[in-house]
Amino acid sequence: MALLLHLSDVNEHAWAEGLQSALGGYPVLRRDESFDPGNIHYIFAWKPAQDAFDGLDNLKAIFSLGAGVDALLAHPRLPDVPIVRFVDDELTQCMSDYVVANVTMHQRLFTRYKAHQRAKVWSQLYPPAAFEINVGIMGLGVLGLDAAQKLSLLGFNVKGWSRSPKSVENVETFAGPDGLDPFLASTDILVNLLPLTPETEGILNYETFRKLRRRLIGGPVIINAARGKHQREADIVRALGDGTLSAASLDVFEVEPLPKDSPLWTIETCFITPHIAAISNERSGVKYFAQMLLDHEAGKPLRNVVDRDRGY
Amino acid sequence: MALLLHLSDVNEHAWAEGLQSALGGYPVLRRDESFDPGNIHYIFAWKPAQDAFDGLDNLKAIFSLGAGVDALLAHPRLPDVPIVRFVDDELTQCMSDYVVANVTMHQRLFTRYKAHQRAKVWSQLYPPAAFEINVGIMGLGVLGLDAAQKLSLLGFNVKGWSRSPKSVENVETFAGPDGLDPFLASTDILVNLLPLTPETEGILNYETFRKLRRRLIGGPVIINAARGKHQREADIVRALGDGTLSAASLDVFEVEPLPKDSPLWTIETCFITPHIAAISNERSGVKYFAQMLLDHEAGKPLRNVVDRDRGY
Repeated sequence: MALLLHLSDVNEHAWAEGLQSALGGYPVLRRDESFDPGNIHYIFAWKPAQDAFDGLDNLKAIFSLGAGVDALLAHPRLPDVPIVRFVDDELTQCMSDYVVANVTMHQRLFTRYKAHQRAKVWSQLYPPAAFEINVGIMGLGVLGLDAAQKLSLLGFNVKGWSRSPKSVENVETFAGPDGLDPFLASTDILVNLLPLTPETEGILNYETFRKLRRRLIGGPVIINAARGKHQREADIVRALGDGTLSAASLDVFEVEPLPKDSPLWTIETCFITPHIAAISNERSGVKYFAQMLLDHEAGKPLRNVVDRDRGY
Repeated sequence: MALLLHLSDVNEHAWAEGLQSALGGYPVLRRDESFDPGNIHYIFAWKPAQDAFDGLDNLKAIFSLGAGVDALLAHPRLPDVPIVRFVDDELTQCMSDYVVANVTMHQRLFTRYKAHQRAKVWSQLYPPAAFEINVGIMGLGVLGLDAAQKLSLLGFNVKGWSRSPKSVENVETFAGPDGLDPFLASTDILVNLLPLTPETEGILNYETFRKLRRRLIGGPVIINAARGKHQREADIVRALGDGTLSAASLDVFEVEPLPKDSPLWTIETCFITPHIAAISNERSGVKYFAQMLLDHEAGKPLRNVVDRDRGY
């Protein structure tokens, strides 16, 4: 029995040390060590290589470092064992920090005031109060619910849209394909926190933008902190150009890093951050997965297991 | 008996109509109407002229449109009657909107990311989580308390400083001159919501900035949404230049409109808005002062009366 780490693009060594310390005597292995694949009961994966799962015939579960598992589910040789998603309180906090900061930036007309400042213009345009604005959140999982709750406490009117109907305190909810248009029609600031699935890919497109409510100063706003493939960047450029959207905050992109020749870089009303809205945190990850493994070895069920049919 | 309106620089006519409608038969007079000064029992004032109160020998109270009464208290011929401050739920909401938007903007390193965007640089620097940041609020009146509560719900550590000791849930409080240094030493982002008094004038100065905690990326931040005379703008320019401060959000200025030759306009890390954080709202003002007058005429005590010794 052993836990194998297969973490690309992150400090695998630090994770190994942390997990080894948290797991006591339970063996933790790294890819460059020699081991018998048949001994591996758990694999902790991030961006797994093609051969990552080969020979792991006694695998009990896959631990996914990312909260989103769209890339993992696309792996061509993914074993048929439970996949545990990382649900991280600190990641949730950071994602809500990002959402609140970007919603309030657009509410308070920062782009306009920054332009006025550059021109040394003193022009007293009063931003709307929070209670005059409808924020629509797509995706009511852990992240969407936390952001919804915080925005509601700040005084915003919060609307939510999800695949299946949900009841959320202080939030008017809409569900499924039929609920999308009425949801968009009552949304001034659209926040995307959906999982990436075939149904949600490209959902941030020109037709979607045209259906948003147009009551905000300058027009509606979109904020995408989920996945780049949710958005059609050519449509965002067009919508910001013709006034269908007044502004956008994008943390993710169709291709990352965002190519130098993307027109998004130079659009003043588009606020770009380099996929830093929220990151899976080592400290909380070690605690979370170590506990999950020990609980499972003690006979308890796995939690936060991915539903492969839904895709998240 | 009558209520006299003396409102400069605002739409006095709209206020007169609103108040007349809300007060029923109680007479509402404007300055350009003819009236017997001895009949005036209440005056509703904003930026009163030198002779505003002359001959008002039967005045029962002064209603102040502003939440801050520093200018009114400096009036050379101010009668010795109670002054009622405007406590406006909508103004409170807008002020907290401003504070939350600006605190989170600095937390999330917007200035840095905007500069990276302009240079088309993809550099993943992760902003700190809210719980890693101490926000220090100067002034724990209605506005300070509301902002403190909201920031605390978002996950920030909130510190508060006020003239007299206060106990506030989820906020570590400091009071008086002795409490200022320890308050500043535990503050990353300093928010000023103090009333302007001789004790608080110029409190945002270089010495104050040097005492702030230096744990935030780039250094501490100040946000001033109270009065321009709280700040020494030359000190802010110096502190932003030498790194004593990493950024500032200023909604108020020593001279307003901010003169074109102020160096503040062109400092990239200084975010300027033209005194629009929050405005006294006509709709809620009509309701508030009409009820105050009718209650007082019915024998109830005035509320939110200014303490002239404290200056607010």
